[in-house]
Amino acid sequence: MMAQQGILIVLSGPSGTGKGTICQELLRSYPNLHYSISATTRSPRFGEANGVNYWFTSKEEFRTMISEDQLLEWAEVYGNYYGTPRRYVDQILADGEDVVLEIDTQGAIKIKEKFPQGVFIYIVPPSLGELAKRIYKRATDTPENIERRLGCATAEMNQVYSYNYVVVNDEVPAAVAKIKAIIEAEKCSVARSSELISKICNSVCNG
Amino acid sequence: MMAQQGILIVLSGPSGTGKGTICQELLRSYPNLHYSISATTRSPRFGEANGVNYWFTSKEEFRTMISEDQLLEWAEVYGNYYGTPRRYVDQILADGEDVVLEIDTQGAIKIKEKFPQGVFIYIVPPSLGELAKRIYKRATDTPENIERRLGCATAEMNQVYSYNYVVVNDEVPAAVAKIKAIIEAEKCSVARSSELISKICNSVCNG
Repeated sequence: MMAQQGILIVLSGPSGTGKGTICQELLRSYPNLHYSISATTRSPRFGEANGVNYWFTSKEEFRTMISEDQLLEWAEVYGNYYGTPRRYVDQILADGEDVVLEIDTQGAIKIKEKFPQGVFIYIVPPSLGELAKRIYKRATDTPENIERRLGCATAEMNQVYSYNYVVVNDEVPAAVAKIKAIIEAEKCSVARSSELISKICNSVCNG
Repeated sequence: MMAQQGILIVLSGPSGTGKGTICQELLRSYPNLHYSISATTRSPRFGEANGVNYWFTSKEEFRTMISEDQLLEWAEVYGNYYGTPRRYVDQILADGEDVVLEIDTQGAIKIKEKFPQGVFIYIVPPSLGELAKRIYKRATDTPENIERRLGCATAEMNQVYSYNYVVVNDEVPAAVAKIKAIIEAEKCSVARSSELISKICNSVCNG
């Protein structure tokens, strides 16, 4: 009897909604959850380790991964490649464990095309006004950049209909609790329970 | 701004799986959850009150409810009618609160036709062998009845594919926790969050 497949959880949303913090808290409070490590061709920064922060690869290796369809999604940013290797994700899921990945909206949509059985969760701010406040608080952006990011956030909200769930990041612990409930519920979905169902049906003689 | 609609939770499954106990525990641990009271034409038994255990109605009233499509499902058992009045359910859901009802497989399938937006949860025993033990333990059935009920349970397991979720009743508290996670997750589903999404999108100017 095969174990029930794990679940790929994709956390996404407009930038500035705190999906990174939520992802970290989720990993901390759910020890069996694995974090999907991205591959990149950029050089390691101080303190970054291969297989922890990223899989650091050469451009040649990365292009091979693209051509062999080994990536769930990839993008080129300022001359470097970034992507999500499929093999690592597949392996964990086959072992019956869950994987989370945190990615921008464009990446999430690409992953959904290749991996529709993932659970796609859109993290949103309580309001776009609140998002503006958060971006202002960071105070690392110019007013033009803030305006641009808010404009993007408004446009990105329309992407929500490509997702399965929407979670408001009002308080991080509450948002994490919702995501944990979503994972638990998904494990009970009939679509993911075919092994359980056949086990019960076959248990008449053995039970 | 309208409140988010409540959710109709339908608990069902083969007889003997303990869905009644689960329903009671769920109601106890979730004070805002409402129990859908059935209508019946049978006479009240000692201690039963109208609007608590059942809505006691005349056959004439019941037939009017059938003809006016006021019932989510109904059945005739030993000359008496039993059914689920739609109005009470609709009213609670419109107030943004949730309703649970516990019903046999046939009733659940009928409700799904009229109310596909409900959350249909199939409660199953850990194994059909375990179900046999539970039925034997009750010791209220003849061996023939037990055989018949087990046969039905096996056939009914095929109905699981009409449901959204399957929950194993191994331990009641664990099963109740799963159902609560399902309700919480459903509240985050994009399909049920249109009001939340438009609220966020409209918050740019007001936020």
